[in-house]
Amino acid sequence: METYVSLLELIGTVAFAASGALIAMKKHMDLLGVIVLGVVTAVGGGILRDLILGITPPLAFRDPADALVAVATSILLFIPWLRHRLMHNQRLFDVILLIMDSIGLGVFTVMGIWNALAFDPDRSTFLLVFVGVLTGVGGGMIRDVLAGNMPFILVKYVYACASLIGALACALLWKILPSYAAMLVGMLLVLIIRLLAAHYHWNLPRADDVE
Amino acid sequence: METYVSLLELIGTVAFAASGALIAMKKHMDLLGVIVLGVVTAVGGGILRDLILGITPPLAFRDPADALVAVATSILLFIPWLRHRLMHNQRLFDVILLIMDSIGLGVFTVMGIWNALAFDPDRSTFLLVFVGVLTGVGGGMIRDVLAGNMPFILVKYVYACASLIGALACALLWKILPSYAAMLVGMLLVLIIRLLAAHYHWNLPRADDVE
Amino acid sequence: METYVSLLELIGTVAFAASGALIAMKKHMDLLGVIVLGVVTAVGGGILRDLILGITPPLAFRDPADALVAVATSILLFIPWLRHRLMHNQRLFDVILLIMDSIGLGVFTVMGIWNALAFDPDRSTFLLVFVGVLTGVGGGMIRDVLAGNMPFILVKYVYACASLIGALACALLWKILPSYAAMLVGMLLVLIIRLLAAHYHWNLPRADDVE
Repeated sequence: METYVSLLELIGTVAFAASGALIAMKKHMDLLGVIVLGVVTAVGGGILRDLILGITPPLAFRDPADALVAVATSILLFIPWLRHRLMHNQRLFDVILLIMDSIGLGVFTVMGIWNALAFDPDRSTFLLVFVGVLTGVGGGMIRDVLAGNMPFILVKYVYACASLIGALACALLWKILPSYAAMLVGMLLVLIIRLLAAHYHWNLPRADDVE
Repeated sequence: METYVSLLELIGTVAFAASGALIAMKKHMDLLGVIVLGVVTAVGGGILRDLILGITPPLAFRDPADALVAVATSILLFIPWLRHRLMHNQRLFDVILLIMDSIGLGVFTVMGIWNALAFDPDRSTFLLVFVGVLTGVGGGMIRDVLAGNMPFILVKYVYACASLIGALACALLWKILPSYAAMLVGMLLVLIIRLLAAHYHWNLPRADDVE
Repeated sequence: METYVSLLELIGTVAFAASGALIAMKKHMDLLGVIVLGVVTAVGGGILRDLILGITPPLAFRDPADALVAVATSILLFIPWLRHRLMHNQRLFDVILLIMDSIGLGVFTVMGIWNALAFDPDRSTFLLVFVGVLTGVGGGMIRDVLAGNMPFILVKYVYACASLIGALACALLWKILPSYAAMLVGMLLVLIIRLLAAHYHWNLPRADDVE
């Protein structure tokens, strides 16, 4: 289980770091800006989660592994050959950003629930879901605010909804399935909902769709 | 007293959720964006307050009531009939936003003081006022940053001033009046100062008013 | 040592308050907006640091001294004679903003390390550096987000790098030098790197510098 969770955290960290680095590159930041936004996106959600749960200093401050992985991911995307391809192919850029952001969202949503339960196994479903969603959307929200974009969570199709459904499924299944299975279902739900929504351009009513 | 505080919290939550939902609608967000911004505005200030006071997990994470009220308020404002009226009448929109935001500011300013004292009755006046102002302006600040607006607190007439005067009055009167009266005076002061300032276009000197 | 640290904190508070007030003036805010942004910039980094370290309520909430110094600094810069000079001389404005922001960055980076060690002397170098950088860049990051600017840390030459090198030097030297000397070296490194970078227009590669 330890290995499973560590592996998940690694995947989520790489995915969110990549999403932060991509957005920084799109904003014409220099190498340092790309690294900073990559790291902040990758560790931001977890730091928020730990502050909420009362875990101080947050885990990201105790173990440099995640920050180093995020730095490496950001530098990797900055390699001229790769950067050139990404910056001159808008469609490729969009698809990779969508996938990275969706993986990060899915992984960190269930990791939020895992951490909340690891710290105190006797949590209400509401708290688990709330912490899961916050951990999932937190890093991306900080990323978008720092980069001067409207946060994805406020403008993109079913961003918050995907995280909410995944968190709810994970928290409820936790009681009847082994925890690794509950986490897997939660993650996949987030990923599938997000990708389907993007593919089929699912839309919700807007304030200016006035009949 | 319990009922009185619960009622206040309900009023403040509805008011701030409405202000968040209105701003999200103005920004052409979809239904989910409207709900997210409504909820974040309504619970954001209280979460900041609890983190500052060391109450973890914050109260909003333990009891779903406020979040649900905020969701309901946001959905209600999104009903086509109501939305149509609000989006096509700029003056009505502005007045309702001003009133909702002012009520929220007043209620949460004094609720911040109440919570700080409930948690530890032996607080300095400075801490009470600081926590009160932060709780009052926090939700709106997060709302404006997420929506890509300059925060009200930095641009609107006497926003911070109203909260500061209300908090100071509430904290000082707490020692000589029953607490419900101190809270009432604080709230009304915030509301009256804010509305008078808006009505009479009170202005403070600006950096470009150079003689 | 107490006096030394208090003096540093005073210098850093004045410097960051000035940077916040200057940016607020540039954004045409009124006197209150200028004061609010000055105070938030001056105390924001320290509040973030205390939340991370689990010090609640944060020190800024217990002792009004820093907030009052920040208010006084902001008002001082708003004096018509001074404001007139600053707002009509872009070069002077830029130089003073750069110097104030650099002093604040240097002082708060090493103050972050000092606080982390004061609270628990047995910290890993990674945590010290992380907390130092966060304390150093936190106030400015909040300032820029509130003012609607892209944070310095993402766009300015070697902003994060200067803080990182200063924090690393300070944390490593702590073991072999008296602490006041370690802090002095850390601060000066931040200041020198930042000013040299600005003077010589050091640049790092950008995502659009594609060969």
